[in-house]
Order: sequence, then structure tokens, then C-alpha cells
Amino acid sequence: MKRADIGLIGLAVMGENLILNMESKGFTVACYNRTVAKVDDFLNGRGKGKNFIGCHSIEELTQNLERPRRVMLMVKAGKPVDDFIEQLLPHLEPGDIIIDGGNSHFPDTTRRTQYVESKGLLYIGTGVSGGEEGALLGPSMMPGGSPAAWPHVKSIFQSIAAKVEDGSPCCDWVGENGAGHFVKMVHNGIEYGDMQLICEAYQIMRDLLGMSADEMSDVFRAWNDSDLNSYLIEITRDILAYKDADGQPLVNRILDTAGQKGTGKWTGIAALDEGVPLTLIGEAVFARCLSAMKDERVAASKVFAAPAVKFTGDKQAFLDDIKQALYAAKIVSYAQGYTLMQAAAKTYNWNLNYGGIALMWRGGCIIRSIFLGKIKEAFDQNPALSNLLLDPFFKEKIEAAQAGWRRVTAAALTHGIPVPAFATALCYFDGYRSEFLPANLLQAQRDYFGAHTYERLDQPRGQFFHTNWTGHGGNTSASTYTV
Amino acid sequence: MKRADIGLIGLAVMGENLILNMESKGFTVACYNRTVAKVDDFLNGRGKGKNFIGCHSIEELTQNLERPRRVMLMVKAGKPVDDFIEQLLPHLEPGDIIIDGGNSHFPDTTRRTQYVESKGLLYIGTGVSGGEEGALLGPSMMPGGSPAAWPHVKSIFQSIAAKVEDGSPCCDWVGENGAGHFVKMVHNGIEYGDMQLICEAYQIMRDLLGMSADEMSDVFRAWNDSDLNSYLIEITRDILAYKDADGQPLVNRILDTAGQKGTGKWTGIAALDEGVPLTLIGEAVFARCLSAMKDERVAASKVFAAPAVKFTGDKQAFLDDIKQALYAAKIVSYAQGYTLMQAAAKTYNWNLNYGGIALMWRGGCIIRSIFLGKIKEAFDQNPALSNLLLDPFFKEKIEAAQAGWRRVTAAALTHGIPVPAFATALCYFDGYRSEFLPANLLQAQRDYFGAHTYERLDQPRGQFFHTNWTGHGGNTSASTYTV
Repeated sequence: MKRADIGLIGLAVMGENLILNMESKGFTVACYNRTVAKVDDFLNGRGKGKNFIGCHSIEELTQNLERPRRVMLMVKAGKPVDDFIEQLLPHLEPGDIIIDGGNSHFPDTTRRTQYVESKGLLYIGTGVSGGEEGALLGPSMMPGGSPAAWPHVKSIFQSIAAKVEDGSPCCDWVGENGAGHFVKMVHNGIEYGDMQLICEAYQIMRDLLGMSADEMSDVFRAWNDSDLNSYLIEITRDILAYKDADGQPLVNRILDTAGQKGTGKWTGIAALDEGVPLTLIGEAVFARCLSAMKDERVAASKVFAAPAVKFTGDKQAFLDDIKQALYAAKIVSYAQGYTLMQAAAKTYNWNLNYGGIALMWRGGCIIRSIFLGKIKEAFDQNPALSNLLLDPFFKEKIEAAQAGWRRVTAAALTHGIPVPAFATALCYFDGYRSEFLPANLLQAQRDYFGAHTYERLDQPRGQFFHTNWTGHGGNTSASTYTV
Repeated sequence: MKRADIGLIGLAVMGENLILNMESKGFTVACYNRTVAKVDDFLNGRGKGKNFIGCHSIEELTQNLERPRRVMLMVKAGKPVDDFIEQLLPHLEPGDIIIDGGNSHFPDTTRRTQYVESKGLLYIGTGVSGGEEGALLGPSMMPGGSPAAWPHVKSIFQSIAAKVEDGSPCCDWVGENGAGHFVKMVHNGIEYGDMQLICEAYQIMRDLLGMSADEMSDVFRAWNDSDLNSYLIEITRDILAYKDADGQPLVNRILDTAGQKGTGKWTGIAALDEGVPLTLIGEAVFARCLSAMKDERVAASKVFAAPAVKFTGDKQAFLDDIKQALYAAKIVSYAQGYTLMQAAAKTYNWNLNYGGIALMWRGGCIIRSIFLGKIKEAFDQNPALSNLLLDPFFKEKIEAAQAGWRRVTAAALTHGIPVPAFATALCYFDGYRSEFLPANLLQAQRDYFGAHTYERLDQPRGQFFHTNWTGHGGNTSASTYTV
């Protein structure tokens, strides 16, 4: 009896496409789904006539696998993953590998790695990006977990992963325990940011310049042939050109409320926990929350007088300014995301390869772009680069974009177009390049009302001073009580 | 032997001042500190000749209390609170009350309420705001926990709390389990926001208008005599006027790196968890993180060319624009904070009194202001007000401020002054009053790459559509796999 190279649990769209991809690369895949009718549907449908072994129980699945057994879960993140791990354990043997390919939260993956290893087995938590199409044709994969498991899955993963021009696979080992899912989480946060930036560019064109969907599609087409070339710009071009049954642009019929129950908020929380200013992704997540308040927005739109929205100027020059704003804000977003990964690597003791991560994201995944090739080059040239903004290529780009970025953002705020991501990116850039921020006043306030002390510009760092500002508050500093 | 009305553990500045306040209102207080020398220092110092009972052990402390015993902890949030609860439990009896007056995280307070109640005792977690001066002269207090405990502490708490003009105390019962600490957390988040807004106004005056500390102090003096009247504006006026030993403004000597290991980040995390766009507080927290990167900022300031910072215009008119921006952004910040409390009240089943919360914050605490009186009026008039922006008073204010707010924010972004809070508030306002945001494009993108489906403007809500945008992605929608 021929055994399968890998088993998969969970035949939703991602799972289906992933194993069709594996099978197309010569692997035999056993598959199982909790609602077992789906297994037969798949075997009689898209999987018909191919090297799949349909299984109707966990036991059957594990009996049909080569050793060490590799079982991949493509199920909803959270409790279902823990449940399937429990169901699998009695049927597995030391050295077997459980792989979670869902969007699990990285602390869960850290915990599960430890738990599964304690049973003598190995564990991998891998980010898989690229949506349904990526899963089918070549996703980006970001595996972490038990290092000993990697040699046993490497050939399968790298075979199915996307490839860049020189043939390098968009998949490599990320690091121990939750590192793979952490990097995937940051990827998703960056995806939130990229999408928000495109939406802001779109809204300025739509609401300030009054452009049609076809006109905007043309702009995105031109941008996609430039240094903004990327999957998200490309699909935006196609979405804006897509017509509903009656020939009208479908995009104009779609409700403007975004879903967001995902990994974007985890990225924001991780940034808050690490104390890393991840403002653009934060704004992108909150913009989705605000979009979801549709009924309130409709009501408020009837209550508030808005500024006159009238564009007077050179439209073509302004479109180029929008492009500059999008490019510059994108640099800031990636700079922030990388800073978060660097902080987490310190916290969790991961040895992350930042250029390698850019390569994994270079193809296959939702944020794939030529931009990521430039990030790989930046970290190849200087693996210790503390902030992407300081890389010579990106420094030059952002300086060249600066004037247009400022014009567009100021114009949008003047005319009542919300551009939270353009604006926060600009504020981050201006804050980052500021020798003096106003936090001296803030520290004085904290010392005034809470005796929190301050440092002085004319004294060495690490010396803390308290001023009795009011003359009657006492000289006790707040060593054990922190606001 | 005379017994004490309440016992206190933790003689740092807040604890000391709080019990001096209690004693001044006629209560006898027993006190204990882990480093017991501090007890004697206090009794021989600020507490000399007053109704304090100094105790050198937990046992001695509990033996000196009236029943039901009330023991208040003013210790560092986190493990020390749990440790002292464990140390106290053997010495307490059913009906006794443990009170945590520190900055505990609300889920910890929820857990501790449950735990202490399981031992037959009662628990209160109370926010205490006002810094050292407030603790001494009248803090704002936000107690939650075991409802049965409230009648036993009400008279002490309301005696020492700040009072507003009509004599109402800035302290009332907030709600069950963690509600008090949740409201205190939001208070602190709002405090972060208020401080950031003042810092942005200050930086524009300093760096764009080139004003001196004395000139700025005069501006804050004038603002404090207007509808911006508040504690933080008042102390900013005084801080800017405060001179170092050599007669130069002290504020110019203070290092511009802000501390932030506190409750601001919890507020941001709570907002992300609730899906509430709390953008201004989020930016305020991140602005502190960015300020802390001083060495990197100094290095970057030498790398990047900045736009010319030159103000040409009517300075007095621009100062009024700054004032409008500060006021309008402050309305947005409080609107966002209240929205967060409303969402949490639903999640945790708290029956919060929003006008009452404004009253608790109206005096005593760091964010006290006449502004909060207006918020109380807004919720008194309409307890079901869904968003503060829709209250007639604030609606009129924000519309009047709109033009100046836009001018200042646009000018700051043009001239390279980072104003993340001014800008994000404006973007929230513009987003909130937008019938159509660009999230229709975003939903199309999510459906394109992940089959996440969308709703349509021309169909009832709750119907989800998927388009096979590429013609080859399949028609399976992603019901169980959410990005």
C-alpha cells in the first residue's frame, strides 16, 4: 500500500488549494475533514484522479502516512488546533510532526511547541500567505517551531512555495517556537497597512479629484509598472476595472465596511507590549473598526457640515504627489514593522534573518512586491540596520518623496478626506528625524503631578531629578508607584 | 485601645498622602510598610502627632482595625498585590475588605475579586487619580469590585475625594469586579492623550513660531482662563514659567524622552480587543515610545534634510487656530474614550453611569477640567448618547473649531512638525462623518485574494457575496479561515 508523504486536516479553500499544490509537485497527500462528506466531495471533485488518499477518521489518516508522520492542520485558529492536537497525539509516535498552517497567535504556537515536544513529538507553526491563489500556485511560507522538524518538511515546503526570479523559494526556517507565526503576524499587519494606504490613495482620487473607477484603474496600472509594482496594486487595478453584470464598476456597489477579526490587532498589541511605535498598522486596524460603524457614519454624515471639497490645481502633478505619498508611507510602514520584529527577537531570543524574511515575502504572499527585493538588499548590505529609513536607497527615496507627500496629506486634511495612514507615517518620519521632541514638557508634567522624575540634557543619562514644582508637594519621588 | 478605621499598606508618596488626607478628615489610620523603617520615619516625620497607628507586621496591622476590617494596598501593581493578599488572608475574617488602590490591570482586579470573594471576604479595586497632590488634598476615586463592600468604605472614600463646586464628591461606585480599574485605565489613556495634545501645541509654538518659554506660558495662562481651563493646562503654564537656578527656563533643560510603562498601553490593547477606534490615545502612547528612541533620533536628525520651517502669517490668528485644534482634538479623544467604555460595558456586563464617570473626573484627578462638566451635562441630557460628537454642545464646538484645526494640522505637516494626535483626531472626525469610506475597495481586495466575501450597497445587510475575480480561483468562500 502506498503511503502519503503528508496528511492534511481541514478542507476549506486554503487546505484544498495547498494540497492540490503539493500533489502537483509529486507528493501524495492524505486528507481528512471533520465534516467527512467534504472528503468525498473533494475526491470526486477537484481532487479526482490525483494522488490523494481520502480518509474518514484521524486514525485512518495517521495509518496512511510515511514515517516520520507529517500531519498539517489547516483549521480555524484557536481551540480547533488544540482539539486536533489532542485527537492526533494517541495516533502518533516519537519523531512525528504536527504542523499548524493556520493563522495562530504566536504565543499559542510557543505553548504548543513546548507541549508537543513534551510528548516526544515535533511541532511546526507556519505562516502561509498568498490567499487561495497563493496556496494553489505557490504561497509564501514562514515556518517556526521545533528545529529538528525542519529537515523533514523542508523539501515539501520549499517545493510548493513561491519562487523569485532566481529560483529561490519564498520559504525558509524562521526560528524557534512562535517565531514563524510572529513573522506571519507582522506580515499580516503590514498587509493591513498596505491595503489602507491604497485605500487612502483611492479615496483621494475618488472624492477629491472626482475620478471614475476606470480612470483610477489606469492610474494603478501605471503605478504597477513602476517601483510600486506589487500584488496589491495589481489586484487594485483589476478590481477597479471589474464590471458588474450591468457593465457598471462592481467596486461602487460594495459596502464600505471592512472585516478585521484577525491578526492586525495582534500586531498592534505586540507593538504596544514591545513599546515599538507601530503607528501605521495601528491606524490601519482602527480605520477598519471605523469603517464597520456604517450606520453611525451615515447618521453623522447628515449632522456635520463638511469643508468644501474642490480641487484646483494640476491634476497630473497631484496624482504624482499621491504616488509619492503612497511610496513614502509604505517605507515608514515597513520600517516600523521591521523595528517590531527586531524588538521581539530580543525579547524572545530569536535569531531572525531580516533579509531572509524579506525574501520570504518577496513572492507568493499578499504583500509581494519589488519593494521587498530592495529591503532584502538593504539587510544584505547591513544585517544590523537599525531602521530601514537609514538605508541609503530608502533614505533617498523618502527624501525625494517628501514634498509631494506633505502636499497630498495637507490637502486631504484641508478638504476633509481622512488619511490616517498617510498622516501618521509623515508624523513618524518627522518625529524620527527630530533631535528634540516635546517630551521634555511631558516629563515635566509627569514630575509635577506624580513625582516621576526626569533626566536633564546637561547631565549624563541615568541620573533622575525631581523638582518640587509647587513648593508644597514634598520631595518624595514616586519610586514604587508608576502611572 | 483605640482601633483604626482603615489600614494602609505601602508608604510611598501616594500612600503617605492618601492617609494624611484620611487623617485630616477625622479617620484613624493604621499603617504598615514592607521596609518597616519607613513606618517609623513616617510616624516621626509627616505623620507626627497625628492619629496614626504605626504597625511593624501584617498581623499587628490587622489587630488594630475596626470590623469589618478595611485594608488598603498602595503598592506596585502586579505580583506585590497578589503577595499581600496572600499575606493578609490568614489574618482576616468573613466580611473584611481588601482594597487595592494601585494602578492594577482590570482583568487582575476581576480575578482578585472572584478569589477574595471565594474566601468569604470582600474586595475593592479602586482607581485613585490626582498624583501626589491629589492624594493629599482630594483625589478622584473610581471604586469597583464587590458591591457589598461599598457601604463600608463609602464614607471614607467620599470624605477624602475631591469635591466639585456644588460639593458633590468625585467618587462613586463604578461597578462590579474590574469596572473601577477599567474606568481608571481609560482615564489614564485620556491623560496620555491630553498630555500629547498639549505637547503638540507646545512644539508648534516652539519650533514653528519660535516662541520662548515665557511667551508660551502666557498663552497657556490665557487658555486656562477660557473653555480649555484644566489642571494640565494650568501646570503647563507654571512649568513653562519655572526657572532653573540660573534663571533660565527649566523646561529647556529637561530630556525629551517620555516614560510609558503604564496604563496607556493597556487602554490601547483594550481598544484593539474591543474593535473600537481609539486612535488618539494610541498615537499618544506610540509618541512616547518614539520619544524614548533619543539616540536614534539624534542620529537621524543629522541624516535627513527637513523642510524649511518658516512661519509667515498672522501669529495671533495662528495661535487661535492652535487653540481650536487642541479643543477639537480633545473632544475627539474623549469621544473615543467613552466609546471604549460603552463597548467594554457591553462585553463585561457593567452598568456604567457615563455622566457619573465625568463627575468623578471633573475634580481631583489629572484630567480635571470644566470640559468634563460639559460631558456630564451631555450624558445627563442623553444617557444613551452613542458618541460625544453628536451632543449638541460638542457638535457646535467642533464645527466652530474645524477650519482652524485643519489649518494648523496642515501647516504642521507641511513644515515638518510631527502632530500625530492633531492629525489622527481630524482623520477620525472626517472618517466618522463620512457616509462612504474606501473600505469597499478593501473588502474587494480581501475577497479577491482570500475569498472573504463582501456585502453590497444595493442588497440588505447580512448577505455575503463572493466574486471569482480572476476566473480561475474557484468559488469556495473562506468560511473557516479568516485573515
